[in-house]
Amino acid sequence: MDAALSYAQSHHDTFVDELEDLLSIPSVSTDSAYADDVQRAATWLADHLDAIGLQHTEILDTDGHPIVYGEHVTDPAKPTVVVYGHYDVQPPDPLEEWDTAPFEPTHHNGSIYARGACDDKGQMFMQVKAAQAYLSGEGELPVNLKYVIEGEEETGSMAIESYIQENGDRLDGDVALISDTAMFSPEIPSITYGLRGLAYAEITVEGPNRDLHSGNYGGAVDNPANVLSRLLAGLHDADHRITIPGFYDDVRDLTETEREAYAELPFDEEAWMEAIGIDDVRTEAGYTTFESLTARPTLDVNGLWGGYTGEGAKTVLPSEAHAKLSMRLVPEQSVDDIYDKLEAHLQAEAPNTVSVTMRRLHGGDPVLVDPSIPPMQAAKAAMQEVRGTEPVFVRNGGTIPVVADFQRHLGLDSVLMGFGLDSDAIHSPNEHFGLDRFRQGIEAIIRFHQRYAAAADSR
Amino acid sequence: MDAALSYAQSHHDTFVDELEDLLSIPSVSTDSAYADDVQRAATWLADHLDAIGLQHTEILDTDGHPIVYGEHVTDPAKPTVVVYGHYDVQPPDPLEEWDTAPFEPTHHNGSIYARGACDDKGQMFMQVKAAQAYLSGEGELPVNLKYVIEGEEETGSMAIESYIQENGDRLDGDVALISDTAMFSPEIPSITYGLRGLAYAEITVEGPNRDLHSGNYGGAVDNPANVLSRLLAGLHDADHRITIPGFYDDVRDLTETEREAYAELPFDEEAWMEAIGIDDVRTEAGYTTFESLTARPTLDVNGLWGGYTGEGAKTVLPSEAHAKLSMRLVPEQSVDDIYDKLEAHLQAEAPNTVSVTMRRLHGGDPVLVDPSIPPMQAAKAAMQEVRGTEPVFVRNGGTIPVVADFQRHLGLDSVLMGFGLDSDAIHSPNEHFGLDRFRQGIEAIIRFHQRYAAAADSR
Repeated sequence: MDAALSYAQSHHDTFVDELEDLLSIPSVSTDSAYADDVQRAATWLADHLDAIGLQHTEILDTDGHPIVYGEHVTDPAKPTVVVYGHYDVQPPDPLEEWDTAPFEPTHHNGSIYARGACDDKGQMFMQVKAAQAYLSGEGELPVNLKYVIEGEEETGSMAIESYIQENGDRLDGDVALISDTAMFSPEIPSITYGLRGLAYAEITVEGPNRDLHSGNYGGAVDNPANVLSRLLAGLHDADHRITIPGFYDDVRDLTETEREAYAELPFDEEAWMEAIGIDDVRTEAGYTTFESLTARPTLDVNGLWGGYTGEGAKTVLPSEAHAKLSMRLVPEQSVDDIYDKLEAHLQAEAPNTVSVTMRRLHGGDPVLVDPSIPPMQAAKAAMQEVRGTEPVFVRNGGTIPVVADFQRHLGLDSVLMGFGLDSDAIHSPNEHFGLDRFRQGIEAIIRFHQRYAAAADSR
Repeated sequence: MDAALSYAQSHHDTFVDELEDLLSIPSVSTDSAYADDVQRAATWLADHLDAIGLQHTEILDTDGHPIVYGEHVTDPAKPTVVVYGHYDVQPPDPLEEWDTAPFEPTHHNGSIYARGACDDKGQMFMQVKAAQAYLSGEGELPVNLKYVIEGEEETGSMAIESYIQENGDRLDGDVALISDTAMFSPEIPSITYGLRGLAYAEITVEGPNRDLHSGNYGGAVDNPANVLSRLLAGLHDADHRITIPGFYDDVRDLTETEREAYAELPFDEEAWMEAIGIDDVRTEAGYTTFESLTARPTLDVNGLWGGYTGEGAKTVLPSEAHAKLSMRLVPEQSVDDIYDKLEAHLQAEAPNTVSVTMRRLHGGDPVLVDPSIPPMQAAKAAMQEVRGTEPVFVRNGGTIPVVADFQRHLGLDSVLMGFGLDSDAIHSPNEHFGLDRFRQGIEAIIRFHQRYAAAADSR
């Protein structure tokens, strides 16, 4: 391992130069104007995996953007780590708020500024460079590695689930390793052991067969926009608990141990509120803010529209109204079950004056990984060695559907070892990634492989 | 009067030809692309008033579209009737749904088809032709007449109130006469004795200082779209009464006499529901559908927007959400008082997690005219003579702000003698107006002037 570490150290500048090449390709997956660039990034990455000595590198076409695959499998006795990442990025808009061009990587205050610098090109590239450090520094790896790098994470990861389902043999392994999350704070490294799931629905309330004049019809026609407001408002009670019957049935509550660990985290609620400009929080009764953000289910309206939304006044009684709403789920809730319960509840609550329909737009199951398993402990030790501080295990309020897919289809637990920071401005203008964290990430991954292999060997 | 009636009969075809000329001018007031046409319609109308023998005809410039004025004042002993109408029209969209071009008047099944055929060029022109029939047929009028014809009724009547306020002497009169309403049904003529008012507001709920990721922030940040839904839903109780404190304080309830008269109206609720495609009504508890449509106050959401409203799923927790909402008011509610009460209620209900602001967009006070006063009885007798059926007095759920302005600033009651039908498709494609009703309207107005003058004379 020492040779790998010293190779990484001595080649740091080269690694950064290479990352800049990748960051220069505007692989925006959600906008078809960039389709060629996404393809170009896939090609660049596959060539790169090939160049550092991976085998069977391949660009797999999908209905959307391609998946890049590469592996280094030499010894069935070694444990196999499946590495996931993504090479696509968010759109750079609003462009005018960037201090430097989003696809012309720039160094400033020890960070590299570019769209994708952190999410996820920078973090994914740490995984690639760790393998290279072993292969070039040591001549071999302590583990078998399989890389699955997708190109449409920012636009819904449509192709990856069926790819995982259909490639069970190829992706056979012992654990998944992902660098696509943030640390608890700049001072406190963390490993994510839980992710919330997501059930995202679109609701339509239809009333009269056309828009009506509110003077001629107001007073006797149940207004779909008013009905929608009633339905949405009724989804929470005064304790901010969700009222859908059975919604909490499968929720596994935080254990006492978890709550105690959470209580020790230096979560600065005042600073957190100030950063987003709110005067008070609204949480489910009985839970702290940090618990509510990461380990309790939610229901949020993501979009709302209906009737006249232009300038001035138009006295329309709209024929329909719409909402997009999503629920973040926690273990052991399941997307399909929650969709069913929401739909049944809406139908039960809908008055006979309107019709209510629900579309299921996008889902992902929640995930929980036992922090005590060997790969989690290997990650903890690796991060501690690099950072000098013991990392904490925390849950994350977001959703990474592929993690649930790995668990469901391959039986793989995922180690979410991320080096991002909330201040990295992912999805925002001036995204950046500290070069110290880029270096530490590579080193931590090198150490993870070594420790995990040793733990697997000792069993 | 007989000479006036026979003049109108013998010149019917000429009157229709002239109306077609006016209907051919696309005087769409809300779209600046038509500004020259609106001006052209004003000029056409002023020239026409001049040609039929009115005095002091004038095109009055305003901040918006001009007001056309003309009068025939000969004898201070005669009562003075102030006629109001409008020469502007709604946009013709959607154009593809018209069977014939909206500004190329066409005859079909005894009706004239064109934008404005009924609302209000056709009905306003009846008022003009009645005066001409007297002046050309009799050589004189039984009343003094003052015409105020505006050009921005369809875009908010912005200029007319200050014009009325500033021209109290010029508009001095005994009653206002307006043909801009519909009959109760094709068989039952009606005179409108009440109009609802309007208070139209825009509400904004602002939460965090930017759109947030619903995974990272959901569960502790009060979502402005959810808050807006709660606020809107809370504005009605289970009886569909409006919950704003003091909202009903000044409502003058329907009298027993009114309710009995209403009960005798052949309002076909099933047919009404079927026409707009609803399975059930939703009215304030204790009131019939027709009462609720015309004589009870309402609160309707006219528009709703916030967050992500495009295709697919975006997991945004929106920083703000908006609604346009309007209340139809009934006597003796006042716009300003209701605005104040709504705003106070919203502020009282708003949680401390967000800020709520309200803008007052557009208002008009409600109106009630005593059906027993001489001009109302003159209108009733005139319509009965023409139609052979006794007209009913009904209230209308809509708002014509100028009627309240006449009452407030000039002390004028308005006689709303309209010959439209709900099936005339005003504001919709294929607007039309029955030529029989055009003829009957002119005749009824001729008879109104005679009867009203006689009643005034006998006092």
